[in-house]
Amino acid sequence: MIASVSHIIEEINRKLAAHDFGEQPSELYEPIRYILSLGGKRLRPLLTILAYQLYEEEDQFEQVVEPALAVEVFHNFTLMHDDIMDEAPLRRGKATVHKKWNANIAILSGDVMLVRAYDLLLGVSPDRLPVVIRAFNQCAAEVCEGQQWDMNYERRDQVSEDEYLEMIRLKTAVLLGFSLKMGGILAGASDKDCQCLYDFGVHIGISFQLKDDLLDVYADQAKFGKQVGGDIIANKKTFLLIKALENASPKQRVELEEWLSRVTFDKEEKVEAVKKLYNDLDIPGLTRQKMDAYFERGLQHLQQINVADGKKETLYAFAQWLMAREK
Amino acid sequence: MIASVSHIIEEINRKLAAHDFGEQPSELYEPIRYILSLGGKRLRPLLTILAYQLYEEEDQFEQVVEPALAVEVFHNFTLMHDDIMDEAPLRRGKATVHKKWNANIAILSGDVMLVRAYDLLLGVSPDRLPVVIRAFNQCAAEVCEGQQWDMNYERRDQVSEDEYLEMIRLKTAVLLGFSLKMGGILAGASDKDCQCLYDFGVHIGISFQLKDDLLDVYADQAKFGKQVGGDIIANKKTFLLIKALENASPKQRVELEEWLSRVTFDKEEKVEAVKKLYNDLDIPGLTRQKMDAYFERGLQHLQQINVADGKKETLYAFAQWLMAREK
Repeated sequence: MIASVSHIIEEINRKLAAHDFGEQPSELYEPIRYILSLGGKRLRPLLTILAYQLYEEEDQFEQVVEPALAVEVFHNFTLMHDDIMDEAPLRRGKATVHKKWNANIAILSGDVMLVRAYDLLLGVSPDRLPVVIRAFNQCAAEVCEGQQWDMNYERRDQVSEDEYLEMIRLKTAVLLGFSLKMGGILAGASDKDCQCLYDFGVHIGISFQLKDDLLDVYADQAKFGKQVGGDIIANKKTFLLIKALENASPKQRVELEEWLSRVTFDKEEKVEAVKKLYNDLDIPGLTRQKMDAYFERGLQHLQQINVADGKKETLYAFAQWLMAREK
Repeated sequence: MIASVSHIIEEINRKLAAHDFGEQPSELYEPIRYILSLGGKRLRPLLTILAYQLYEEEDQFEQVVEPALAVEVFHNFTLMHDDIMDEAPLRRGKATVHKKWNANIAILSGDVMLVRAYDLLLGVSPDRLPVVIRAFNQCAAEVCEGQQWDMNYERRDQVSEDEYLEMIRLKTAVLLGFSLKMGGILAGASDKDCQCLYDFGVHIGISFQLKDDLLDVYADQAKFGKQVGGDIIANKKTFLLIKALENASPKQRVELEEWLSRVTFDKEEKVEAVKKLYNDLDIPGLTRQKMDAYFERGLQHLQQINVADGKKETLYAFAQWLMAREK
């Protein structure tokens, strides 16, 4: 990781741990501290600060840490509620809030987290507050829309590539876009630059999610944090599965659908069999192609931002690092 | 109902029905329109407008309808999530969202409703937006705290009168207080007046909830919208039950606890028996006393507001009407 970036992440973690979310009743506030303590890359607040630094001196970001934390708190609110809906037992290797406590507590703690995200946004100067809240609201509603499409698609037989890409744009990418755009707004960047920051974020966000889909099947188990092949075991409709169903020969399609319909199976055997089909159909290649195309389009938006190229180096290097990650 | 008040409620309902909450995915937005269509007194936005009218001409309230709707949307968001937690099958005689759709949809639709409440708050002029959002956030977090205390108390053997009053202050009363205070802020009222409006709302809010507890046992079934005695049947820890347990003689206490512990019973028989104990202990009298005390203290705060007495008549009459209601 880039040195200046590590320093910012330390600062984000310090401020997040010190933030007063509330105390009583403890059932409401403990889960908030718990989910935030599970770690994570702190990608979103980092992007806000890196975008802000395009326009300011590198060590000047203290005044934007608070609004930057808002996007991290919001992101963790969505995780807390999504985990209930997905009945996920684990989050970053630890019990999810609804498992450690119960679903009611996870609903209500999540609600308070969303309110606390708006509290943190009040760190924005009053003249910029309406535009920030308006953009945040749009993003927040879109993230919910993405989650609803995701749930809808899990119950559907067929999902097209376009539908899938639109779903991950809403569920994952727009929040990266907003995080970057907010950094621009806070630095007083032009509307055009703010839009470029947003588009940069949305494109690398989609690319980032495609990388996630790929890693879930092709990561090195020794380096990957969770079980490789989890998406295959759960029949998750990822980009890989959608493309495989689309490109399979009649014979391959029968084999793939047979695996999808099996109720009992050996997990390792299913992962190996589906992976072999993916390889035969060059799904990793197709996915990487799509991933790279979004990444390149993202970088084009970064290039269009009206600041000296030297200022963009950290964001550029960080985006590269993000796509090269192995977990 | 007071004529000018009916006119405002019509306007609230018209604007609420016309508001664009969103369209797709329909699973996300249909439940929002559904719960808002179930009716209700529209008490909270009405209070915002009545407070605003203390300082403005009576027909001048168009510009505050949008922020006023925010408190109604927020209130219905809390109902949607509370109904999941309470496993309530019915809301105003119709299926609750989690029953008509499912719990996941009720969680996610509720989340979007909360975001949409903040959207509506953007109708506040930029110079007043930070103070409104800060007050709203505090109120919203307190409402969640109240709901968590309520859930905690349902699993507890003993709850004191003070704990109960604090719970209903948080769960119900602070939102009435905020609704009134926001009307003052929007009209440019002094901080002192805004505080009086808030205190007026909190006190009549507690009084209003005590009236609810009382009506649940003593309402006329022909006029009451839901089953009279529902709280008794469900062993709900209302003010009435708490006072009865506190004041019962050893013999009465044994009888009351026996009814509380029965798993199977004739509903009518239980309601009659507990009601008789309440009557013997003069619980309705004690409740009315407490209710009236809060109501009087509320009116004192209304009196202290620095506008001509004539301007306060509608708010005063409306508060009286609220306490005289039979459903």
